[in-house]
Order: sequence, then structure tokens, then C-alpha cells
Amino acid sequence: MAKEITPRSQDYSQWYNDLVIKAGLADYSAVRGCMVIKPYGFAIWERMQQILDGKFKETGHVNAYFPLFIPKSFFSKEAAHVEGFAKECAVVTHYRLMNDGNGGITVDPEAKLEEELIVRPTSETIIWNTYRDWIKSYRDLPLLINQWANVVRWEMRTRLFLRTTEFLWQEGHTAHATAEEAIEETVKMLNVYADFAEQVLAVPVIKGVKTANERFAGALDTYCIEALMQDGKALQAGTSHFLGQNFAKAFDVKFANSNGQLEHVWATSWGVSTRLMGALIMAHSDDEGLVLPPVLAPTQVVIVPIYKSQEQLDALNAQIAPLKDALKRAGIRVEYDNRDNHKPGWKFAEYEMKGVPLRLAIGPKDLEAGTAELARRDTREKTSVAFNSLEQLIPALLDEIQDKLFQKALNFRNSHITEVNSFEEMKEVLDNQGGFVSAHWDGTPETEQKIKELTKATIRCIPLENKQEAGLCVLTGKPSEQRVLFAKAY
Amino acid sequence: MAKEITPRSQDYSQWYNDLVIKAGLADYSAVRGCMVIKPYGFAIWERMQQILDGKFKETGHVNAYFPLFIPKSFFSKEAAHVEGFAKECAVVTHYRLMNDGNGGITVDPEAKLEEELIVRPTSETIIWNTYRDWIKSYRDLPLLINQWANVVRWEMRTRLFLRTTEFLWQEGHTAHATAEEAIEETVKMLNVYADFAEQVLAVPVIKGVKTANERFAGALDTYCIEALMQDGKALQAGTSHFLGQNFAKAFDVKFANSNGQLEHVWATSWGVSTRLMGALIMAHSDDEGLVLPPVLAPTQVVIVPIYKSQEQLDALNAQIAPLKDALKRAGIRVEYDNRDNHKPGWKFAEYEMKGVPLRLAIGPKDLEAGTAELARRDTREKTSVAFNSLEQLIPALLDEIQDKLFQKALNFRNSHITEVNSFEEMKEVLDNQGGFVSAHWDGTPETEQKIKELTKATIRCIPLENKQEAGLCVLTGKPSEQRVLFAKAY
Repeated sequence: MAKEITPRSQDYSQWYNDLVIKAGLADYSAVRGCMVIKPYGFAIWERMQQILDGKFKETGHVNAYFPLFIPKSFFSKEAAHVEGFAKECAVVTHYRLMNDGNGGITVDPEAKLEEELIVRPTSETIIWNTYRDWIKSYRDLPLLINQWANVVRWEMRTRLFLRTTEFLWQEGHTAHATAEEAIEETVKMLNVYADFAEQVLAVPVIKGVKTANERFAGALDTYCIEALMQDGKALQAGTSHFLGQNFAKAFDVKFANSNGQLEHVWATSWGVSTRLMGALIMAHSDDEGLVLPPVLAPTQVVIVPIYKSQEQLDALNAQIAPLKDALKRAGIRVEYDNRDNHKPGWKFAEYEMKGVPLRLAIGPKDLEAGTAELARRDTREKTSVAFNSLEQLIPALLDEIQDKLFQKALNFRNSHITEVNSFEEMKEVLDNQGGFVSAHWDGTPETEQKIKELTKATIRCIPLENKQEAGLCVLTGKPSEQRVLFAKAY
Repeated sequence: MAKEITPRSQDYSQWYNDLVIKAGLADYSAVRGCMVIKPYGFAIWERMQQILDGKFKETGHVNAYFPLFIPKSFFSKEAAHVEGFAKECAVVTHYRLMNDGNGGITVDPEAKLEEELIVRPTSETIIWNTYRDWIKSYRDLPLLINQWANVVRWEMRTRLFLRTTEFLWQEGHTAHATAEEAIEETVKMLNVYADFAEQVLAVPVIKGVKTANERFAGALDTYCIEALMQDGKALQAGTSHFLGQNFAKAFDVKFANSNGQLEHVWATSWGVSTRLMGALIMAHSDDEGLVLPPVLAPTQVVIVPIYKSQEQLDALNAQIAPLKDALKRAGIRVEYDNRDNHKPGWKFAEYEMKGVPLRLAIGPKDLEAGTAELARRDTREKTSVAFNSLEQLIPALLDEIQDKLFQKALNFRNSHITEVNSFEEMKEVLDNQGGFVSAHWDGTPETEQKIKELTKATIRCIPLENKQEAGLCVLTGKPSEQRVLFAKAY
């Protein structure tokens, strides 16, 4: 029997949970707020990692690994950082268990740590404490390091991929001789993320800067990419921070410039996480399951034979084997599912659920006619095509699907940016069609906070190269120089 | 000035530490027992990961990710496992910090977990708790899953790479319908590890089975590969465990067989870790620094220009650029270091320290004569070679170096396996030449323990396909059916 998921129109949130579970992407775990990333979900994440890692290396970065644990005192060293991060964290207080005498185990009270260790929520503090020993002179700069790691933030309300207590991410931490170079790096990595989101995930993003309220704890500026989901809510898909000299000052990291004078080092950090899986799922998928852009799909084409007798299967196997080999040689990830465990209809539903971009079904009649049935996952169109055209057709079609998914998401996003000129209008749009609302704002954190309380929408970003345009704040009527983008967000 | 490290003859242990630090492989961290893996060390580990991951996938495995935290009660479910693992662990007891009123932060006593969480020392328990939901029928088997992850074991005495509180590893966890299949998998993965050690790390290993004393906590049988370091101490480089039905019983994981009857599932687990970096370093390196097998070297060939004037450098750049391109096209990892920051002598010492297998130096006289100076890191031989032979010569030479390193380590290992027939002889060999001692043992844990107390040597393994040979135990004189391998070990 085909698996079924709640339709989006009925309950978008339940649709998402159903899809993640039934497509085999992730599972709940025995540990509150932590997920298990299942093999199919992990295969997609691995492809994201591989592509991103290549982009980091092309832009001169190298990988390294820093400890999971951070001494508690490190968090007190950067005032803004502790407020933002050190509060909701997993705290290691002991290092030994002992038998409790009843067949169970208990924490050994003798094995209490002198200083508690925090499971990293982000690694600026431990990394800048290390950089102090690595950076002595301008010759040691820039230092362009990335880390792939797990991090823990004790979240009260969790959602698979979108907000989990433990998640996987990469965090870049770079050190520079000047503010200009650090800002250039911050923007460069924002562009790497934006290109990755658009070209690989096929998710259009708006590049912008966060307001003070939404800034990373310890940053002078937080740049972000913001995507729009099908339910009209925004999702922050990646951030890149210009940290100024804050961490260098907190951890006393100085370098001798070319004149021999000591200066504090300038810093950036930037990250994307398994949250991207949530963005990917919600941007493209439908009531039949996952829709995957071909660049990320672990299987791009699945071929299903239709047969009744072993003789028919043998004939199909012989016909399909060379096609499969030819596609593989062309770099296409193709799977031939001639397993005898399920009927074709079950397989069709399963591969739709898993979002395989193209499905080929070939039966004895096709064999005679030299045809195959080709089904596209994104449009769910089926067409009969000439078997001997497939080797040419499939690579071109995968490219077309990748483009089409992006265009569709872009059209949706563009039709969900609404300029509003009054608070009533703003509220009306946010409550009904959703999406981004472009509105004037007086530039104060207080007004931003007030709007959040009244509408649940936050300022997602001030777009880069934003048009300067005089106007009046939708809430206070005070003068404003530019519109900013509000939205309800994940 | 060239960096210097303590000679091996003077202090082997200090030589190792110096080398790890000065070659830029790893660094101490602010957290007791945890290391920082520096970019150069991580680049080598990444290559290991990439090659191993390919081998896992070729043998039908997929990757997934399970939570970092394990509920304390899970460890009590498998009796042997708790004894072996749950004792020296990092324990998370709280999930929030608060301001202490003096500018610092303190653990919030209100935020105490009902059940403590253990930072995973290994993941059998959380994974088998998850497999309960994934395995219902024989059709769900085998389940062949691997995870790349960080793990924590609270070690009292730590050494960079060899024994650290946190380390990186992979852990395979497979589920099977029969004992035979599970044993086949255990041995298959042992062979994957052995081939990897010999062909990639160029480190010869002995495949064997552990005695009960040295077995993984919860396993019915632990298979291992054992390598020999230059100081005559053994190093366990990887293990593969046949877990029987122990974890399936502890976590109630049953499957319906093809007759519809419920049976407990059979399990294996297998892992290698960043400890392999320690094996790699200690197997090949010398008093000048790291010696890397070409398959793993991040840079296989470095080209250093020798020049006095910019004109000379321009001429060298023009000559070397096409060679570099040609080598890159041939898949060789080549670097041309024409940076003006250091003299050639400094660069030579630096690349020796970092273990780059081949170094080319080319100066104005070479340009005229059509030659280059080629230096091998492993033998430290320098020869003058025809410049236009390099494109052919270098790939062949890299293969030769890979073979030679393995042969050298194999000869050393083979000449350090000594058959002994009395306890005095055993002690004499262990105290003087070191290496493996092949000796009769009466098969009891008590005798093994006694020998360990008297010699510090443990039974490294009972080699696979071991010759059966009647003899008398070196300690007790009781009858024995085979010799086993003893050694002092890391």
C-alpha cells in the first residue's frame, strides 16, 4: 500500500512532519529534541556538504577540528556572546558513573569537574582562544578555517531539521589584518551561500543585513540569506558575520603589522546547517512527497521494469543494462529497480515519496515498440518516449528540471513580496497571503519589537543595495529612509 | 631557522609529541585531554575518511547520523557494555546557565535534567534502540549503516591522536538475520581495514581475534588489526565486533523470519578513529619530521625555485608552469612554492618536516642544463634528473615510494616477531628488542592478567588462521594448542 501524508492545505505543519518521516529523511530519537538523520536524508546532506566543501576550498579555506567542549568561563569573556548563547546549553558537570547497587548506574559525586564544560553551541570562543597561539605576525594572516561539526542548543520547541537540540553544520572562522578584508570575506561567503542555495537547492534567496535585534551575539554585522517557504513563512538559510575585533579583544589575539606594531585581529564567522534540509523540503515538495532538485538527488533516475514472467524480465534486463551503463558513464545517478519485492505501483509511489526526479517504466509492449514511459516528479507528467532517445534526453531533462524548480520557487517568492504603507495593510497581508512584507520602519529596536508582538513578524533583513526611499514608519509614522522586509519566520 | 625535534634515540615519546606539533598536525587545547586537529593534520584525516568512505559504500553501506547524547539508563541494558564503557564518560546534568551576579555565569540549579545524558563513548545503545523501530521483517535486513562522528571517553592519560578524551571516528552498526551473515560482515570489514592500513597508510597489520580480556564490552568476538611502531610497541589500528544477539536482546529488536516467526537480530559493529593518524606518524617518520605515504600526502610533490633576481624567477615560473599543469592533469597533488617569504633552505626543512614525498629544486643552472634536483623524503636521496623526464618519472616514483614504505615497515615488523619458549626469554625480548612475542599461553584470563602485571605486555591477538601447535604455557607450563602474540602496546 502506498504511503500517504497529510495534504498541505489541511495542515502544513503536519504535512512537513509526515513527509520527513515517510520519505525516510529523519526520525525522532529517544533524546528530547535530538533527531536521527536516516540514510536517505543523510545522503542528501552529504551531497550538500561535498558541494559546499568544494566551494570553501576553491575560495582558499581549509578544514580543521576544535574541541566539542568549551570551558564555562570562556563564555563570560565576550559580553554580548554570553547573553546570546551561553544560556540554553548542555552542561557537563561530571566525568564518571558508578554502579548504584541496584543493577543500574548513577553519577559518581566524587567525579565533579572543577569547571563545568559547555557542549559547543558555536565555536567562536574556543577557536579564538586557540588563534591566540597561532597568530603572531601579519604573515600568519589571513587565517581561513572551516569546521564541519555537531553543535547543541537547548531548544524548548523543536522540529525535525528546522530546529533541533543537536544539529550538524559547518562554521567558518577567519582572521584578518584589516576590517576591510574581514568585511570582504563576510560578503564573499554570503555570496557562496546564496549561489549554493539558488544553484544547488534551487531555492531563491534574498541577501541582506540583519537589524541589531536579530544580529549574531558578538557580531558588528550579520549578513543573511532569507528564503520563502510554500506556506508564506520565511526561513533564514545561512548567516555570515563580521565580528570586528570583539573576539580578538576578548581572547587577546594580536598580530605584529608590517611596521612591527601590535594590533587586534579582525574576525568573521559564517555557517549553514542541517536546517537547509528543512528549506529544501519545504520549498519544492508536494502532497505526494519530496521533490528534489536533480543536483542534490541521491538517485536522479529510477528505472522500473514491468513484467509478468521471468522471460519478460530477462528481456527487459538485457535491454536496460546498456542504458544504465551509458547514463552512469555520463555521470547520471541511475538506479534499476528490478527487485521482486513489490509491485510497480508500490514502487512508483515510493519513488514519488522520495522525490526521484525522473522515473522510467518499461514493459514488454515498450520493448516491442521501442518506447519507454517517462515520468517527471516535479510536474508529474508522463510521456511515452523513444527508448533510443533516452541517453540524450535524460541529462538535458535533469538540467531543465533543476531550472524549472528554481523558476517556480522564484515566481512564488516574487509574487509574495508585498509593499505596504500602513500597519493595517501590513497585518492584513501577514495574516492572509503571508510572504515578505516590504515596509518603512523608523529604525529603532523598540518599534521592531512592538511590531513583532503585534504581528509575530520580524525584520528578516535589510536587503543589500536596498533602494533608498523616504517614507513613514508603518507603526510610529516617524520618518524612514528605506523599506525593510518583514515576515513570519521559521 | 629550521625547526628541530627531539631525536627518536633520545626520547621516542618526546619525538612523537614534537613532530605532531611542529609538523602542524595537531595542538593541545584549553580542554583537558582534547586536541585541536590543525589544517594540515585534518587534510590527511580527510583523505583517510574519503578513501574509507568509498570502501564502505562499495561494500553496500550507507551513512546516517544518531544523537550525540545517550540517556543514562540505556547503558544499564547490556550488562557487559556498562562495565566497559559507561564509567569514564562525560555526563550532562543541566541544560541552562545563568548570570552569577558578578559578571560571570553559573549553572542554573533549576535546569537539572530528570535523567542525565551521557556524551556517546560509542553508539551501540542509542542505535539499537532506534533499530527496534526500523526492523520488523527479514525484508528489512541486512541493515548496513555507518556513522562518522565524534565520541568522548574520559581518559586519564592522554596523547595527541593516540588517546584523547574526544576523538573522531567512524562506527559501523549492522543488523543481520543470521549469525553466519553477521560473522561474515565482521570479517569483511576487518579485511577492509587491513587493506586500507596496508595499501593506503603503508602500515602492515596482523589480523587476529582478541582474547576475552581484551574483547569489546558487549561483543562475542572482537577481531582486530595490530600494527607495530618503530619503538617496538604494538598499536591496535581497528576493530570489528561480532555482537551476537546481545544488543538485540537488550533493546528488544526482533524480526519476522520468512516463516513469520519472531527472532532476535544479529549485530556487528566496527570502527577506526583519528588514532590511525598516530599509527601513520609512528610507522614511517624520522628525526627530520613526518614521512607520508604518497597516497595520503595532501601535497605529493613540491617545486621550489632557486633564484636571485626577478628575471631568474620569471624564467623559472615560465619553465615550471607547464610541468605543474601536466602533473595536475595526471592527478598528482603538486604545489609550486615561489613565495618570497623564506629562503630555499627554510622551505626544504619545512617540507621535510611536513613529509612531502618528493621535492624538486630548480635554479638558473638547471634551466640552462635542462635538469632539476629531485629529493625523496623517504630515503632523503637527492639526484639530478632531466627536466623533461619529470612528467613520466614522478608518478612512477610516487608509486615506488608507496611500495617502499610498506616494504620497509613490513621488514621491520617481520624482524620483530620473536618466538619464545620460556618466561625469562619472553621478558628478555620484551625488555630489549620489543616487538611481538609469539608464545604459548594456557588460554586462561588469569594467566594473561598475570603476564600483563609482570611484563606490561598484553595479548594483542590470536592471529587468524593461526598454526595449531602443541606446547606449554610460558608462565604456567600448562598445555597450550597455539602460540599467541604478546606485546607492549599503545
